[in-house]
Amino acid sequence: MELKREIYLETTPLNEAIEKWLRRLESQGFLIAFPGERVMVSESLGRITAEPVTARLSSPFYHSSAMDGYAVKYQETFGASETSPKKLKLGEQAVYVDTGDPMSDVFNTVIMIEDVNVHEGHIEITEPATPWQNVRVIGEDIVATELILPENHRIRPVDVGAMLAGGHVDIKVRRKPKVVIIPTGTEIVEPGTNLKRGDIIEYNSRMLSGLVSEWGGEPVRFRIVPDNIDMLKEAILEAHKAGDMVVVNAGASSGSEDFTSRAISETGEIIFHGVSIKPGKPVMAGIVRNKPVLGIPGYPVSAFITFNLFGKPVIYRWQGIEMDPPEILQAVLSRQAASTLGQEEFLRVKIGKVGDKFIATPVSRGAGVLMSLVRADGFVRIPAMSEGIGAGSEVNVELLRTKNEIENTIVCIGSHDNALDLLANSLKKKYPKLSLSSAHAGSMGGLMALKKGEAHIAGTHLLDEETGEYNVSSIKRLLSDRRIVLVNLVYREQGLLVLKGNPKNIKGFKDLTREDVVFINRQAGAGTRLLTDKHLREFRIKPEDVKGYEREEYTHMGVASAVLTGIADTGLAILASAKALELDFIPVAKERYDLAIPFELYNTDMIRALLSIIREDNEFRDMVAKLGGYDVSDMGKVMYDG
Amino acid sequence: MELKREIYLETTPLNEAIEKWLRRLESQGFLIAFPGERVMVSESLGRITAEPVTARLSSPFYHSSAMDGYAVKYQETFGASETSPKKLKLGEQAVYVDTGDPMSDVFNTVIMIEDVNVHEGHIEITEPATPWQNVRVIGEDIVATELILPENHRIRPVDVGAMLAGGHVDIKVRRKPKVVIIPTGTEIVEPGTNLKRGDIIEYNSRMLSGLVSEWGGEPVRFRIVPDNIDMLKEAILEAHKAGDMVVVNAGASSGSEDFTSRAISETGEIIFHGVSIKPGKPVMAGIVRNKPVLGIPGYPVSAFITFNLFGKPVIYRWQGIEMDPPEILQAVLSRQAASTLGQEEFLRVKIGKVGDKFIATPVSRGAGVLMSLVRADGFVRIPAMSEGIGAGSEVNVELLRTKNEIENTIVCIGSHDNALDLLANSLKKKYPKLSLSSAHAGSMGGLMALKKGEAHIAGTHLLDEETGEYNVSSIKRLLSDRRIVLVNLVYREQGLLVLKGNPKNIKGFKDLTREDVVFINRQAGAGTRLLTDKHLREFRIKPEDVKGYEREEYTHMGVASAVLTGIADTGLAILASAKALELDFIPVAKERYDLAIPFELYNTDMIRALLSIIREDNEFRDMVAKLGGYDVSDMGKVMYDG
Repeated sequence: MELKREIYLETTPLNEAIEKWLRRLESQGFLIAFPGERVMVSESLGRITAEPVTARLSSPFYHSSAMDGYAVKYQETFGASETSPKKLKLGEQAVYVDTGDPMSDVFNTVIMIEDVNVHEGHIEITEPATPWQNVRVIGEDIVATELILPENHRIRPVDVGAMLAGGHVDIKVRRKPKVVIIPTGTEIVEPGTNLKRGDIIEYNSRMLSGLVSEWGGEPVRFRIVPDNIDMLKEAILEAHKAGDMVVVNAGASSGSEDFTSRAISETGEIIFHGVSIKPGKPVMAGIVRNKPVLGIPGYPVSAFITFNLFGKPVIYRWQGIEMDPPEILQAVLSRQAASTLGQEEFLRVKIGKVGDKFIATPVSRGAGVLMSLVRADGFVRIPAMSEGIGAGSEVNVELLRTKNEIENTIVCIGSHDNALDLLANSLKKKYPKLSLSSAHAGSMGGLMALKKGEAHIAGTHLLDEETGEYNVSSIKRLLSDRRIVLVNLVYREQGLLVLKGNPKNIKGFKDLTREDVVFINRQAGAGTRLLTDKHLREFRIKPEDVKGYEREEYTHMGVASAVLTGIADTGLAILASAKALELDFIPVAKERYDLAIPFELYNTDMIRALLSIIREDNEFRDMVAKLGGYDVSDMGKVMYDG
Repeated sequence: MELKREIYLETTPLNEAIEKWLRRLESQGFLIAFPGERVMVSESLGRITAEPVTARLSSPFYHSSAMDGYAVKYQETFGASETSPKKLKLGEQAVYVDTGDPMSDVFNTVIMIEDVNVHEGHIEITEPATPWQNVRVIGEDIVATELILPENHRIRPVDVGAMLAGGHVDIKVRRKPKVVIIPTGTEIVEPGTNLKRGDIIEYNSRMLSGLVSEWGGEPVRFRIVPDNIDMLKEAILEAHKAGDMVVVNAGASSGSEDFTSRAISETGEIIFHGVSIKPGKPVMAGIVRNKPVLGIPGYPVSAFITFNLFGKPVIYRWQGIEMDPPEILQAVLSRQAASTLGQEEFLRVKIGKVGDKFIATPVSRGAGVLMSLVRADGFVRIPAMSEGIGAGSEVNVELLRTKNEIENTIVCIGSHDNALDLLANSLKKKYPKLSLSSAHAGSMGGLMALKKGEAHIAGTHLLDEETGEYNVSSIKRLLSDRRIVLVNLVYREQGLLVLKGNPKNIKGFKDLTREDVVFINRQAGAGTRLLTDKHLREFRIKPEDVKGYEREEYTHMGVASAVLTGIADTGLAILASAKALELDFIPVAKERYDLAIPFELYNTDMIRALLSIIREDNEFRDMVAKLGGYDVSDMGKVMYDG
């Protein structure tokens, strides 16, 4: 609990930091490919050759027959013809050979069995043979001394075969770089611990370990070290002996990071601290007793990005191999993304291929939101000298998934419903090739996304107060020039969520004006927001009289979570979200939730697959019904087409 | 040694065979995704989820400060302004929090330390706070019950982090399909065995094991089973108990294959035997006691192709995942490839990007030439109903390497020299991103390849008998419209190779007319062939008087191998090849070997990197000199530019 606060070191631009880091390691001779270690060829899959592999033996290493037939001397076949066939004595002038049989030194050609008449004691041929016909000669595949694999080559299954065929039993491959990862932070606990408030589950080290493995290294996870400068210094020195690189992963608090920088500078030397990137700014690097040490920030997205930027190139260089360049996809940015001048930003995006265009939509930018990385399809880099990228701009996306996966993803933007999670799962289960990605932007946001070509389908529950009908009038208004098919997913109950036992005794909308009741709202454009406003109007309640009206959540689960955790006393959401978090539920309305699908996509393979789940998959239907608060009687039914 | 020969079963078209196979397995319920097994999340990298993973906990699961600052009640900040700051009592109305600290229930917002004046016992603020500002609220990253990963998802490092954050310690992943591979054949021996004539090193099972691992399965290699029907049946039944699929890999002889088909039909049932593909025709599939059994041919290229076609889809289906479609590259075929009508051919090709075009050049088509697969960049499929593909046709290549690797490959076509292998290795060592691929087509073939844009560089040693100069006149004649730079690689000695001790006492070209001497020639267009012909003319020897003149090899090592193994008594080749195989060498001529480089490529990064090895890498120069028979004094020198 110090009042003093370490002022950030001047941050270094990204390229400069990378260059400084690699150049420094290089100049001290720390970036040389590791020496080799011997492994059995049969265990060498995926390893990197540490020396050229040249054939010790030819393959085959003796002449063998390439056919079933008779081995003979070609000189003895001269003159054979249809009219004067030639006889060769079995056992002496001709010997039967199966495919693969070695050829005796006496013979130098093979006649196929089809071309031979076999008699007692001799064969008859009607054509002369040429030398070495139908013979697999020595070295046909591999000639002794020839290069099978160069140095610095990643070994594939065929390479394993070729090395064995070339007479190798063991070979020299690069030793795997050992990376010791030290999780730090007094608040950090192991997964599976009984949690108490203030604990943070330690998961970064496992994510970083996974990256080390994927890059060909060997991760070693160190025990958790609390925020104590002496213990951290001791840990770094111990880790330093156990590995080739030490990675200190700070806790998510800025305090932890200060400890890391002190511990590195007091055991060695800091090369840079603070880089002008977002997220990831607090990253630092140093050298402790001839080994590179990285100080990786605590927020998971920062940790992922900075370890990729500063750890990966070193691990690759140690193996003597080049990093694959990221796969780049050109896409159109669907919304503008403002960015801070002077910081290079790594913007996470979801991509959807709608028609011929790839549309990239920014997702959460919080450094602490790991799920945004789990769901992201790639990064757009916004240069430090830019204040942002406008909607509709062409951007280069560095992909985290393959283009093929992206092309097989149905993009659903719109109102959030828990049934969509189940739908995503059932789709992937039945059609492993396909994915459903849903972004929550409210019903109106979904229809706008269809209009702009950003989404394949939109989940929507927009009530027309005049007609009492759902969705149709909004579609006619917003998408007048398009033919849209509305397919029902569910009817669902909306209601006010309250803590179990309803401690504040909330009975309905009227209670929202009470002094002791805090409400949590949904964002503008959400169907649930319209429902709230409709009820407020009916009860003639002014929004300014509802405490918390201005605070908005984007999903039903967000509302439920706010109620569970005391941010608010109540909010409008679906029954399923109350059930998920064990809240009580005061029913307010039953509403229709449809999927809006542009007609031109309605018969595509992807959408047909999705509809087949909705219409025919009883397991899916049962799981939705089990969530509670859903009426699935019209599931899959076309409610409108026009 | 049977005379009876099993007539091939009628072969099945490829698509029909695949469909028959998968449909049959499906109809018997053998193609269902495997049930899950529990693994620790920290050990789950690369595994496939066997059920949806939903969050057990929210993350964070309590409100925490997102900044260093003071936790306060927002209601108590109302009215604060520059002119009338508000005081909050420390410990009661305000408490210092570090980033990440949990928020006490009392407070509901955080003011950043920058916006606070700290005094003894109280803080002063000049602005009101909004609720929950600078607070990381519960569920900001993950909300309890939300879907983290769907079923059938391959787990990445970020997913590991998210599952741990969501409260999981262990999860259910698909059991790895266990594939038992039985190598068969009486002639087959383990790698490392002291070899005798007739032995074949068993390497296919290791290659197939590598494929199983890459596909996510668990390979189990069975002991080698000799060609004995009872032992093979016993092995299949034993393997069947140990795994989910049995793969019998026949020896390379057609005999072995007959045993496999009998063993499968006598323990179970054959579904197909023989498919109209090349290579790979003898492949067969069956079912033995409810488990799929594949009979994979013995030739390595056939084994690779057929296991990919028939094994891979099953292993993927068992894991609940889809195979990635092969990466396809459009290329232009450099030479025509004739193909047998009625057979779908998998043509191996090397690809070079010369200028803007990708040029695919067919390589060896032998089913036994594993090195052709090691060196290939991909396959072109020639449909069964086609008699071949013409030169210059656009073809779709299914890639075995990434497009990036192909784009970073220098294609050298031309005369073969052992120094090129060393050059390939030194290039990859110093520039891991780059590769040198060399195809041996003779000096003339190399220049023609430059002309047609198939190669970046050509190795050439073409003597102009009139001028005594090398390469220049050929370039002027063949590439009159192009500016070509000739860079010397080496001067090298050509001579007649003979067995150690020169048992036939060959002294020079005159001996080639002797009755007891068999010569081995090089192909037309090879510089060495020209040298042979020049010497024959000088000695007034007619080619028809040289026994073996008509038999051609394509490389120096091929000639050396032919001499070593008694196919011929002598042949013209470089000293290095004699040294490699411990042959004696009768010097004939010293010749200049240059690399011809089109001027427009001369200054590209790739070629500059290559030239830097040739000109500056002393290790490379020393290694070439050590091969023997080389003069490296002009290595890297420009001999001609015009």
